[in-house]
Amino acid sequence: MAPALNVGVFIYAGADIMDFSGPVEVYSTRPPPGTPQVFSVKTFAHTNPVGGEKSVLVYVPGASFADVEQQLQNYDILVVPGAHPEIVAEFVASEHGQKTLALLQRFAELPPRKETGYRILQSVCSGSIILGAAGVLAGRTATTHHICYDMLKKYADKAAGGDSRINIVKKRWVDGGETEAGVRIVNAGGVSSGIDASLWITELVGGKELFKFTEDILEFERRGEGQAWGVAQA
Amino acid sequence: MAPALNVGVFIYAGADIMDFSGPVEVYSTRPPPGTPQVFSVKTFAHTNPVGGEKSVLVYVPGASFADVEQQLQNYDILVVPGAHPEIVAEFVASEHGQKTLALLQRFAELPPRKETGYRILQSVCSGSIILGAAGVLAGRTATTHHICYDMLKKYADKAAGGDSRINIVKKRWVDGGETEAGVRIVNAGGVSSGIDASLWITELVGGKELFKFTEDILEFERRGEGQAWGVAQA
Repeated sequence: MAPALNVGVFIYAGADIMDFSGPVEVYSTRPPPGTPQVFSVKTFAHTNPVGGEKSVLVYVPGASFADVEQQLQNYDILVVPGAHPEIVAEFVASEHGQKTLALLQRFAELPPRKETGYRILQSVCSGSIILGAAGVLAGRTATTHHICYDMLKKYADKAAGGDSRINIVKKRWVDGGETEAGVRIVNAGGVSSGIDASLWITELVGGKELFKFTEDILEFERRGEGQAWGVAQA
Repeated sequence: MAPALNVGVFIYAGADIMDFSGPVEVYSTRPPPGTPQVFSVKTFAHTNPVGGEKSVLVYVPGASFADVEQQLQNYDILVVPGAHPEIVAEFVASEHGQKTLALLQRFAELPPRKETGYRILQSVCSGSIILGAAGVLAGRTATTHHICYDMLKKYADKAAGGDSRINIVKKRWVDGGETEAGVRIVNAGGVSSGIDASLWITELVGGKELFKFTEDILEFERRGEGQAWGVAQA
């Protein structure tokens, strides 16, 4: 039996609730009776608890940031949520933000995990700006919340020290292809699009049957077509 | 300026993440610049933290159950999430569950709050079973997660001590009409339907413009027609 894919969901103060709760919900849905859990989900954060005055919901993360830094090679999927643009800008500039960019850069250079064959870096909403700031979106097709296209371009270009050749499209999700090491970069569009993107990854990893089962349990029909890697732009 | 509507979102161990995170997201969306916040959201629970081994996400509630018991008259909207049917059955039978049923019964008997003119009891997913067990769905049209129709009927009938005359329909949300005191009962269907129901309540309370604005920010188009109060069944 294949081991479950370890999903690390990053949370920071002010991160949008649905941006990370959507993927957590999808990946932690109980599979059909008698079939194994395909994903094993853990949240992590720089602080414990995480949230505070910026958030209506305050969380006790399942792991510390330092734990995940040390165990990074054991994670198959990392999820990076977005937030209000002002909060994202503040976060990226902070010490915690800078450590997070370094973690994402390291993750993007890890080959797929031997036990599972996967390594996926997934952003939701303005979380792609954090990926952009880490430099992993240069030359890729990407998406983000529809009010953040300019900001994403700006952060990706800044990380590239010039034109990042990022190609920003309006989609529910985008498969941005793989890094040299073989890490697949997936962006979701705004907020609820994280559910669509996670359902797409569920299909990719767990097959069509598990995807349809999860859709049915969530009473959520995946919307849109996504943007497959390598498909020419319209 | 009208005061914000106080929304109390109840959380218990094993409650489905999207069932309550969806409404929290909708009601805590920042309104258009220069316009007042229509909702003020607070979570509450019997324990602190809430979640534990049954949940991937563990929460620090914004208020204790006892706080809300004491301040119940100040809440305009209560949200009751669902969970896996086994967890709901366990919860309803527990001491915390019984106290929760008593709270819901009291809430259903409070007249609309003078300052706002509203009082709404909202369930999401199998959370309607908790409303049914509290006896507030007798004689009403209601909905729940599509795997829970029989269970909802059973719990509503048990609370009624016979046929509850509950009319269960498959909808994204149902406006079940008002109690004698004037508390409006709204059920969402399964999991993600809580987003649709909360968007409908946003429209009801905050108007079409705020509803469309929130849809746009969430990149979530409300699905389905709902079931309006008093509309004849097909």
